[in-house]
Amino acid sequence: MITDQIKERLSSIVGEENVIASQAGRLVYSYDATPNYQSMPDLVVAPRNIEEIAEIVNVCRYEKIPIIPRGSGTNLCAGTVPTEGGIVLLFKHMNKILEIDEENLTVTVQPGVITQDMIREVEKRGLFYPPDPSSMKISTIGGNINENSGGLRGLKYGVTADYVMALEAVLPNGDIIRTGGKLAKDVAGYNLTQLLVGSEGTLAIITEATLKLIPIPETKQTMLALYQNMDAAARSVSEIISSKIIPATLEFLDQPTLKAVEDFAKIGLPTDVEAVLLIEQDGPHEIVERDMKKMADICTKEGAVSVKIAETEVEALALTEARRSALSALARLKPTTILEDATVPRSEIANMVKAINEIAEKHNVTICTFGHAGDGNLHPTCPTDVRDKEEMKRVDAAFADIFAKAIELGGTITGEHGVGMMKAPFLEWKLGTEGILIMRAIKQSFDPHNIMNPGKIFAKETRKRLVVSR
Amino acid sequence: MITDQIKERLSSIVGEENVIASQAGRLVYSYDATPNYQSMPDLVVAPRNIEEIAEIVNVCRYEKIPIIPRGSGTNLCAGTVPTEGGIVLLFKHMNKILEIDEENLTVTVQPGVITQDMIREVEKRGLFYPPDPSSMKISTIGGNINENSGGLRGLKYGVTADYVMALEAVLPNGDIIRTGGKLAKDVAGYNLTQLLVGSEGTLAIITEATLKLIPIPETKQTMLALYQNMDAAARSVSEIISSKIIPATLEFLDQPTLKAVEDFAKIGLPTDVEAVLLIEQDGPHEIVERDMKKMADICTKEGAVSVKIAETEVEALALTEARRSALSALARLKPTTILEDATVPRSEIANMVKAINEIAEKHNVTICTFGHAGDGNLHPTCPTDVRDKEEMKRVDAAFADIFAKAIELGGTITGEHGVGMMKAPFLEWKLGTEGILIMRAIKQSFDPHNIMNPGKIFAKETRKRLVVSR
Repeated sequence: MITDQIKERLSSIVGEENVIASQAGRLVYSYDATPNYQSMPDLVVAPRNIEEIAEIVNVCRYEKIPIIPRGSGTNLCAGTVPTEGGIVLLFKHMNKILEIDEENLTVTVQPGVITQDMIREVEKRGLFYPPDPSSMKISTIGGNINENSGGLRGLKYGVTADYVMALEAVLPNGDIIRTGGKLAKDVAGYNLTQLLVGSEGTLAIITEATLKLIPIPETKQTMLALYQNMDAAARSVSEIISSKIIPATLEFLDQPTLKAVEDFAKIGLPTDVEAVLLIEQDGPHEIVERDMKKMADICTKEGAVSVKIAETEVEALALTEARRSALSALARLKPTTILEDATVPRSEIANMVKAINEIAEKHNVTICTFGHAGDGNLHPTCPTDVRDKEEMKRVDAAFADIFAKAIELGGTITGEHGVGMMKAPFLEWKLGTEGILIMRAIKQSFDPHNIMNPGKIFAKETRKRLVVSR
Repeated sequence: MITDQIKERLSSIVGEENVIASQAGRLVYSYDATPNYQSMPDLVVAPRNIEEIAEIVNVCRYEKIPIIPRGSGTNLCAGTVPTEGGIVLLFKHMNKILEIDEENLTVTVQPGVITQDMIREVEKRGLFYPPDPSSMKISTIGGNINENSGGLRGLKYGVTADYVMALEAVLPNGDIIRTGGKLAKDVAGYNLTQLLVGSEGTLAIITEATLKLIPIPETKQTMLALYQNMDAAARSVSEIISSKIIPATLEFLDQPTLKAVEDFAKIGLPTDVEAVLLIEQDGPHEIVERDMKKMADICTKEGAVSVKIAETEVEALALTEARRSALSALARLKPTTILEDATVPRSEIANMVKAINEIAEKHNVTICTFGHAGDGNLHPTCPTDVRDKEEMKRVDAAFADIFAKAIELGGTITGEHGVGMMKAPFLEWKLGTEGILIMRAIKQSFDPHNIMNPGKIFAKETRKRLVVSR
């Protein structure tokens, strides 16, 4: 409970104009991009600097008030929805690019910077920040770091974690720490940087980050390969990697997704094929030319009915923009869209897609699948309606089967979306009791009063695991 | 204290032939590659599998017996020297390459595999494992992971941590955990993988690892640039990176190191120049040609007195082998060789080298410097004699100044060698009290009885920090 007295103390820290207490104002922060989760915060607070954050933490730890750090709330795991009231912490005042260091190839930012704004800014200097979550137009870097966001370029370039070199953060005890540095090599103690990345705001409040940049690739080409059968598409993926080519992007869309995307984007995508691979390569001209030709040959050899390299940048951009719009496109089909994030080793992509289709049939639900074929990160997506309780039960059962199958194939329950509230009941399936226990011990060591984003990652109860029947 | 009864229990777990209790046998494991540290273990035990390790841990946690996991003991931070007796754990029976997965580009190994053996094995399949610590001919992968070893290819390819995808480990409570997977993307909970990498055996015993591989670069070229002044060499480094070239290797040797290396390797290295850059680029032919030419031009423009690209593979190999032998070469100069690992942002290399020379002069000690200029990781090395107590005091003071200076320049006390016992008294200089406290809390959450490699990373007392006078 936040008393008037506490509210006043918080107002005196951040200024009255930076505290939202109204019903309407709090409602906005009672949900995020995840469907089906909503819960009101007691207060929404927008600090202006790290000192204010440390003061807020000091108030909250004495009063045992939950703190939920929130960027743009674009996460898909209910990671920024309150679970037991408390304070939603906004970073709208801490949204500066502090430095672009062209000699050390780093950018230092505050957490509230919009991902794409930062990407554009560094690209002006011929530098490149590869992680490109589909939400990057509105997501914040702070959110990306807390969720360890992935994106379309993960196969070749890795995820957000691979670019975080240093962090400044406020711990739940009010201490300020600085991890890492502008250093490619640093082994001074435990890797706190990587422990905080992806910790979903449950360990600390990240207040500044130094990110690694790389030189921007000289050029890029985009190709679309169409298939009348999923296996041929999966074989193409395997064959490309086995032939020692690592494309920048290697995306997969199944027919239902393709149809939804074309209805939405209207760029003339074929809708009569079973699967599509969207392939990009970037790098020096000669190499891109060579790789694209090799990959086109492989796709044709493995049974693609059509392989087409985009002829202009406009055409290429339309293709990737269409792919990025997959979630929005599918969201138009039904009132509720449940998008998942099951991930398997690349070699198991065909098996996983096949299993997803069988599971959908078994539970009589519609599941469209698209995702990052190159890195095994799939997004099976179910257009449904939360008001249809009976169907929701079947959807729920289907996704439980999908998680179980992903784990059976050596995969994970979430590749890039995070655990949050949504996948917490399944986490033990991946980690085992022993894994959960040690993670809980880490959480306890950082946050003994459990004030940092409580109710996330760790579930009160693990879902019972059923055997996937096929 | 290890009683006869405990010894018998351990013998019954691993077999009598895998327990060393003799004075002579234990003496071998009373030190590692770090000069000036020695302390006897009570017992040396070589388990044959993870189950035996879990049993050993269960014995040790009840009896509060320290466990010191040890690969080949090539570390340079006294990371595998016992501090209060206990058991040195050997991995000589757990030295298999379990799988090379060409579709997912991974290799799965037991910790006792020799780094170079594994590298050769994957290279036979056209695959590449970049981390190449100078000790790789004898170091083990388990040791590399525990220390997060770097190497000459760090600038372009990163360090060991960047290649560890999954771990199997025994926790100090006897639990077995499996982290990560053959997955480019996995955000299921905290990043235990990266928390264990570089934890120097203080959190868990790593029993298996799955490592990321990449396609082997098509070709490689090597170049030597000679300078009559350090600033010109440093400017070349900056200019190369600013011109958006990331070479595979960008090494620096000063004149005293060069002289020692040439005396040792006798390959005709010039010894009358102030500094040398050893530069390598790998990748597709066209790109390597182009980058080498550009880099040669930059070096010349910035004042190199000679720039020479190796004409044959034999010549190139001789150059890199010579660089790799720097420590061995310097070790011939005096009875004791203290090699350090101060690391700074790349842009501060020239300032750091200058400071090292001034500090050496101030304390009247000899310091030769070489290292990875491209990633700011320098190895100031002092040929000395531990028996000369008076000189050792000055050496000690000089290195304290060097650490302080590195931190002042935004660097760290260790880039790739680890903290161990050697740098523990300086760790707080880098992390602050708050950083040390949270790391201690993590350690406590894993290992409440402090049985895992005690006395490492965390010092009883932090060294008093003096202001570097110049």
